[in-house]
Amino acid sequence: MLICSGFTQALSLITQALPRPVVAIEDPGLPGREAVIAAAGGTHLPIPVDTEGARVDALAAGHAHAVVVTPAHHFPLGVAMAPGRRERLLAWAAGNGRLIVEDDYDAEFRYDRQPLGALHGLAPDHVAYVGTTSKTLSPALRLAWIVLPPHLVGPVCDAKQHHDVASGIVEQLALARLIESGVYERHLRRLRRLYRHRRDTLLAALHRHLPSARVTGAAAGLHLMLALPGNADPQRVADIAARDGLALTPLDRYRLHAPAPGGAQLVLGYGNIAAAAIPEAAQRLRRAVVAAGRD
Amino acid sequence: MLICSGFTQALSLITQALPRPVVAIEDPGLPGREAVIAAAGGTHLPIPVDTEGARVDALAAGHAHAVVVTPAHHFPLGVAMAPGRRERLLAWAAGNGRLIVEDDYDAEFRYDRQPLGALHGLAPDHVAYVGTTSKTLSPALRLAWIVLPPHLVGPVCDAKQHHDVASGIVEQLALARLIESGVYERHLRRLRRLYRHRRDTLLAALHRHLPSARVTGAAAGLHLMLALPGNADPQRVADIAARDGLALTPLDRYRLHAPAPGGAQLVLGYGNIAAAAIPEAAQRLRRAVVAAGRD
Repeated sequence: MLICSGFTQALSLITQALPRPVVAIEDPGLPGREAVIAAAGGTHLPIPVDTEGARVDALAAGHAHAVVVTPAHHFPLGVAMAPGRRERLLAWAAGNGRLIVEDDYDAEFRYDRQPLGALHGLAPDHVAYVGTTSKTLSPALRLAWIVLPPHLVGPVCDAKQHHDVASGIVEQLALARLIESGVYERHLRRLRRLYRHRRDTLLAALHRHLPSARVTGAAAGLHLMLALPGNADPQRVADIAARDGLALTPLDRYRLHAPAPGGAQLVLGYGNIAAAAIPEAAQRLRRAVVAAGRD
Repeated sequence: MLICSGFTQALSLITQALPRPVVAIEDPGLPGREAVIAAAGGTHLPIPVDTEGARVDALAAGHAHAVVVTPAHHFPLGVAMAPGRRERLLAWAAGNGRLIVEDDYDAEFRYDRQPLGALHGLAPDHVAYVGTTSKTLSPALRLAWIVLPPHLVGPVCDAKQHHDVASGIVEQLALARLIESGVYERHLRRLRRLYRHRRDTLLAALHRHLPSARVTGAAAGLHLMLALPGNADPQRVADIAARDGLALTPLDRYRLHAPAPGGAQLVLGYGNIAAAAIPEAAQRLRRAVVAAGRD
């Protein structure tokens, strides 16, 4: 396992360790991955995502050397990769000597279902597993870890050595002490209760104020997807809400390609809002949706 | 100014920001720079160093786009770049649109002379100045700063963004508080006294136990150069001393090219040894020199 400075560095180092690779990435997904891959000497290839996760058929039809996926809880759609899809993804990697980069960015936060096993455990020779403290402690820490297939340990460690030698030792020692003392596990239990309560509060508030909006992807993590009722334009709703002091992100912000029609969705994060403020935020959201529909 | 994770990352980011550059580096110098430059897409070009610093004539004869120098206190030879040499170096950069990377790794530790002004102050459009907390606090912090020519601010910040987004925010806040409170300056004054005392103790012990060995480069920093008397082989001295519990580094370890004959020198660091232990260490060094000469 290599300690590195966040998921971005993990993706950069893995890309550097492969010879000018084509790296497939989920579309929609975390913004900025394509620039990270390009800066590390690779090329990105967008792969669509549906309700069963990343489309492995699209991946198999391409020529990628590696794929970056969020199989446990897609970012931002919130779907878990279906069992058959997981099997086909692993078969793609094993059959072609390809690499799966498993971005398990919010593994610690599962509410309504058992945590899925990591892909890495099923195919450790073909999966690079990346975990992070960005959601559990803070992105300011810049701490992540990569569990690598054996053949990539040397190249990725070399890339790290040649880029910045090591990540901050003080944080690593502090995190080790947090884990060994049991404080980290207690902290996670507290966070799970906290975020579950926020999510439940948000679901109840949306049900009350926007009963015709459809919620998906709420079983885990720190965000959910909201499909707007009618023909509301998410960007217009976000613009109106911004003037009312509410920051909203349309799903399209996370897309590499032009969106499919009819996908009017917002990504609602609850990692950074107090539960007590959620009902008022839902009312503002309702006002913005109504105002956007009126124009 | 960009905060980054140590001098190694500074060199990597600057190299990445230039289009596949040839980067000249001092020979001898800090080990590993050539691998950092290669990993960032550049090629290195060794430049010899003499008693006036890096040989600008050799630089001018080559085709480098950038040069990495330690003008205030060469590592490891300890020489300060002569005024005429500094002028010619700046003229080389200005006349050709080239970049000087000024590695001011131990700027805080000057004992017998006034600190030299940084090259950066004389030519801010052609010099990227790199400072670090690796010597003043700890290399474990992974904190450095780059003051960049204006045209490189965007490309280097992009390279940072695409590699690891940011360096650890906790350390940055802690360092800012140390500086603002005056504690950092007091810490530096204490360190200067401490290291000066160690250096003086080492000079006295060498004078007593190895009066025919010649010391150079002792006016600054955390190490000095020791030219061994007679024909002693530094590697042999180091091997014998290692069996006696004393770690020594021959100068040749820092060379990219085969050494010139007659340069039998050791690099003696005193950053990591208590003053009270120095006389005993000097006696072990003497025993190793005597034993190496006897075989």
